[in-house]
Amino acid sequence: MKNPSLYAAIDLGSNSFHMLVVQQVAGASRTLAKVKRKVRLAAGLQADGSLDNAAMERGWDCLKLFAEQLQDVPVGQVRIVGTATLRLATNIGVFLEQAEAILGHPVQIISGEEEAATIYQGVAWTSSGTGRRLVIDIGGASTELIIGEGTSAGLLNSLNMGCVTWLTRYFPDNELTHDNFQQAIQAAQRELSSVAASYLKLGWQHAFGASGTVQAIQEIMMAQGENEHITLTKLYRLKEQAIACGKVEQLQLHGLKPERAPVFASGLAILIALFDTLGIEHMVLAGGALREGLIYSMLGTRQDCDAQDRTLDSLIARYQLDREQGERVRNTALMTLKQLQPAASSDEHCMLARAAMLYELGLCIEYKRAPEHAAYIIRHIDLPGFTAPQKSLLAALLLNHRDEFYPEALTSQCAIKADRAILLARLLRLAIILCLRRTQGTVPAFQLRQQGNQLTLTLPAGWCKGHHLRASELNTEAERQAAMGWPLHIVEA
Amino acid sequence: MKNPSLYAAIDLGSNSFHMLVVQQVAGASRTLAKVKRKVRLAAGLQADGSLDNAAMERGWDCLKLFAEQLQDVPVGQVRIVGTATLRLATNIGVFLEQAEAILGHPVQIISGEEEAATIYQGVAWTSSGTGRRLVIDIGGASTELIIGEGTSAGLLNSLNMGCVTWLTRYFPDNELTHDNFQQAIQAAQRELSSVAASYLKLGWQHAFGASGTVQAIQEIMMAQGENEHITLTKLYRLKEQAIACGKVEQLQLHGLKPERAPVFASGLAILIALFDTLGIEHMVLAGGALREGLIYSMLGTRQDCDAQDRTLDSLIARYQLDREQGERVRNTALMTLKQLQPAASSDEHCMLARAAMLYELGLCIEYKRAPEHAAYIIRHIDLPGFTAPQKSLLAALLLNHRDEFYPEALTSQCAIKADRAILLARLLRLAIILCLRRTQGTVPAFQLRQQGNQLTLTLPAGWCKGHHLRASELNTEAERQAAMGWPLHIVEA
Repeated sequence: MKNPSLYAAIDLGSNSFHMLVVQQVAGASRTLAKVKRKVRLAAGLQADGSLDNAAMERGWDCLKLFAEQLQDVPVGQVRIVGTATLRLATNIGVFLEQAEAILGHPVQIISGEEEAATIYQGVAWTSSGTGRRLVIDIGGASTELIIGEGTSAGLLNSLNMGCVTWLTRYFPDNELTHDNFQQAIQAAQRELSSVAASYLKLGWQHAFGASGTVQAIQEIMMAQGENEHITLTKLYRLKEQAIACGKVEQLQLHGLKPERAPVFASGLAILIALFDTLGIEHMVLAGGALREGLIYSMLGTRQDCDAQDRTLDSLIARYQLDREQGERVRNTALMTLKQLQPAASSDEHCMLARAAMLYELGLCIEYKRAPEHAAYIIRHIDLPGFTAPQKSLLAALLLNHRDEFYPEALTSQCAIKADRAILLARLLRLAIILCLRRTQGTVPAFQLRQQGNQLTLTLPAGWCKGHHLRASELNTEAERQAAMGWPLHIVEA
Repeated sequence: MKNPSLYAAIDLGSNSFHMLVVQQVAGASRTLAKVKRKVRLAAGLQADGSLDNAAMERGWDCLKLFAEQLQDVPVGQVRIVGTATLRLATNIGVFLEQAEAILGHPVQIISGEEEAATIYQGVAWTSSGTGRRLVIDIGGASTELIIGEGTSAGLLNSLNMGCVTWLTRYFPDNELTHDNFQQAIQAAQRELSSVAASYLKLGWQHAFGASGTVQAIQEIMMAQGENEHITLTKLYRLKEQAIACGKVEQLQLHGLKPERAPVFASGLAILIALFDTLGIEHMVLAGGALREGLIYSMLGTRQDCDAQDRTLDSLIARYQLDREQGERVRNTALMTLKQLQPAASSDEHCMLARAAMLYELGLCIEYKRAPEHAAYIIRHIDLPGFTAPQKSLLAALLLNHRDEFYPEALTSQCAIKADRAILLARLLRLAIILCLRRTQGTVPAFQLRQQGNQLTLTLPAGWCKGHHLRASELNTEAERQAAMGWPLHIVEA
């Protein structure tokens, strides 16, 4: 019996095969299972272009695993794609016949362009930011390069180089020498030479890397205490560290998973060539790529709004938040912000609005420590459309939405300046108190003024006498803010 | 405009007035607001039995706060009750007329018996355990004593003693002396003398304390590094600590909130008398009392199943868990447990079943660290029907439901023996793998045997060949358990 809420995407890559199973719950998707096996299909590509038997057997064995779980996913909700190695293999028919018999589902061998377009959809879905994006995905036998904007991929290419093929070709003796690296980098630069000009001409604002190579590099950098931005300087440093290890099988870097080690040097060489040739200044890891693109293509989700809005809608559904109350608090908070000088940046405006919509998130766990719970959820959840710094600002605002202040969270985030984050938290708290009645038309007209870090909230004449609870809460709030060294005056006109 | 999902309970107590506002969301209730003001109404009771004007004014001022939020709660979903001081006051009419005008809702002055019965409902709703319960609630001017079983209160009484009236009467000079304590304790024993015999005759298995006195004592004990069980020895120690402080206004105990300090000694004296007269061995804080009883009376919730089952149902609804999958894992886990010797205790059986129903809880936050998220939620959420030790066992089982083991969580919980908790975690993990297909009728027949800490799982002949994913996961699991020193053999019949 099929389970109508399940979806599966399988990616028969040149290095690994992956299966992603998600469940649709209340309009949001929840990852149920991720299964991954290092099949190293590309290592079985022979000189005559055929795939050897051993590689095919490794692939079929892995598909037998996937098949067991796939039985319960409805037919129209499975997508299985093969990429570079299967595109190249001359005896693909042999592999596919058996593979489809095992899986009970058709396998599509997608072109490099289709792969690149799907990767871009996966990145666009899970990453944030406006402006043009450069997306790079280094696979086992191919590398996809895409420039896109919003949800449309403009320029796209798939090049015949990957971390498995480059390992076989340029590190044949498994030696991590300057010379082997140099060969590998130069070969990658030659592959890039035909397309580089069009990318450089179009340009981009943000560069994203998908796939295992970029993930491994980010994990190493985090383990070594650096931030998440990949730069050419850092890549050169990793290259030197790798060379110091001597041989591929002796490669040990703090933060590098043993299963990634064999194809790390070859992937690094390709990434260095990309940074160098395209003049990439920095790159971050994308939240998703090919498999996510496949899932989203099946879910038929809205493409007409930005990733942050979609994420917000999904959180409201998943955590059964009171959307109308969130909107009241958002509108009130934005009205306070609008009354202040200097004008807020669009990022400040946007993050205050997001925090206001989500302020009751922690109630899904428990009332008393709800601010901490909200911050915990935001810090751990996948938040497509938000950058890591935006995530930490959002968590800091939610942590500070009522009760005591935790100023360190506001000052240690790096999305906006510390004093602006403190201001946003103060405004959010005022908006929440003003909207306490949870009813349309109950928020008073008010004026907010700022002098230095002093805020003055002017309410209509006589308002406090008629609104005891909010007046009492505003006074308590004024004491709390004053105790932090942030004067807040509540007055009547 | 009223919000049809809101419910409010207001308790006009002799020491504090409280308002609790909850929202019904997807069949579960979510606390939105708690407002509390120390009105100390009982301090205004004069010798002639009338309530003085100052106390009434303090009460009305507080009601003006409550009234603001109450406007949005539907009429049939508000309950406002007055207790001991309002029962006693001879000029109650004056207070009520103004109070009802402020609130826009009727106020019920409930009898001591009705108060006791409602408190019992609140405790029964939020506390766990089978057998007879003794429930004690020390208010500002009355103390309720109830013995009940399940959701029925059998024996109930309301005595005219409370922490505010006992303060005025036995600590008139605010001196924390042995002598004053002695007077207060003896007076409480006299109040108890008429009813004690019937309580002692009926007997109980578990004693629960509600209200601020017991809460304050538990907070002090936790701050002082003790467990949550209140005993007479610990109460005597607190009495000595209080006497060492000299005067009520100088009372400072590590863990005691300043706002509780004035009525702490008088409440402590009453509790000592109760422990002594009734021979109470230990007591824990109840999860709810009068206000919760009022809310539950309005929600018209099921009374026919136990509190743990109700809590489980509510978690499944709140976090949109897949109930059928939970049931499959539960049935499989219980089947493994049943095959082992010695037979499991009912507590082990029950906790394994609960953990199995909730194993996917962490997915509501994120896939990768889902076990940690599940444990976080369980540790922080209100879990009516579960004791604190059961909560920590449940969190430990969920933390250990897949991937690496965190054995400290299993060995540091104190609900069951450490080796049994480890066994339950091992069984839960096996059940989850066996149920991986999420489909009825896909779990193989199996036999589980235990020798020392070695488990042998016997599957049908040839099963592994036809079920590659589960066979692979079972082998990985066997390696994981063996690495912990817990051998697991997977064999075929």
